[in-house]
Amino acid sequence: MPKIIVEIMPKQDLLDPQGKAVANALHRSGHTEISNVRIGKRIEIHFEREVTEADLASAREIASSFLSNDVIEDVVAITKED
Amino acid sequence: MPKIIVEIMPKQDLLDPQGKAVANALHRSGHTEISNVRIGKRIEIHFEREVTEADLASAREIASSFLSNDVIEDVVAITKED
Repeated sequence: MPKIIVEIMPKQDLLDPQGKAVANALHRSGHTEISNVRIGKRIEIHFEREVTEADLASAREIASSFLSNDVIEDVVAITKED
Repeated sequence: MPKIIVEIMPKQDLLDPQGKAVANALHRSGHTEISNVRIGKRIEIHFEREVTEADLASAREIASSFLSNDVIEDVVAITKED
């Protein structure tokens, strides 16, 4: 099914406690090569028909105004997938 | 900073209440072209050096055994980014 994928991450300079907890746990299990872990959202928006340029434009608008909180999050990617 | 991105989604046949709520809200605001919304995780694993094939192999193992719950989630993508 055609879809648009919106990827949202916490802003770079924001503390990410969840990511920090995962990074610490990975370090404890020996993965010391990992310097940091950050956790965000991957949102799939599905369509019953082919995705158009207009759909991508409205997905950008939805992503910034509805799916993310621009005070603490950045929309890092919006991609179309058939 | 070099990183590996792990993308995890709820299993296809699993109810996704959060996604359903977002889809309903988008329909109410007029986006009736959207048939469904599903919400998953986008996890960045950062390294202080270039990412190697060995890092990708261990990321696959970490993704399935630690970052996702294979009863309710699927790892849908693992990609390297410089």
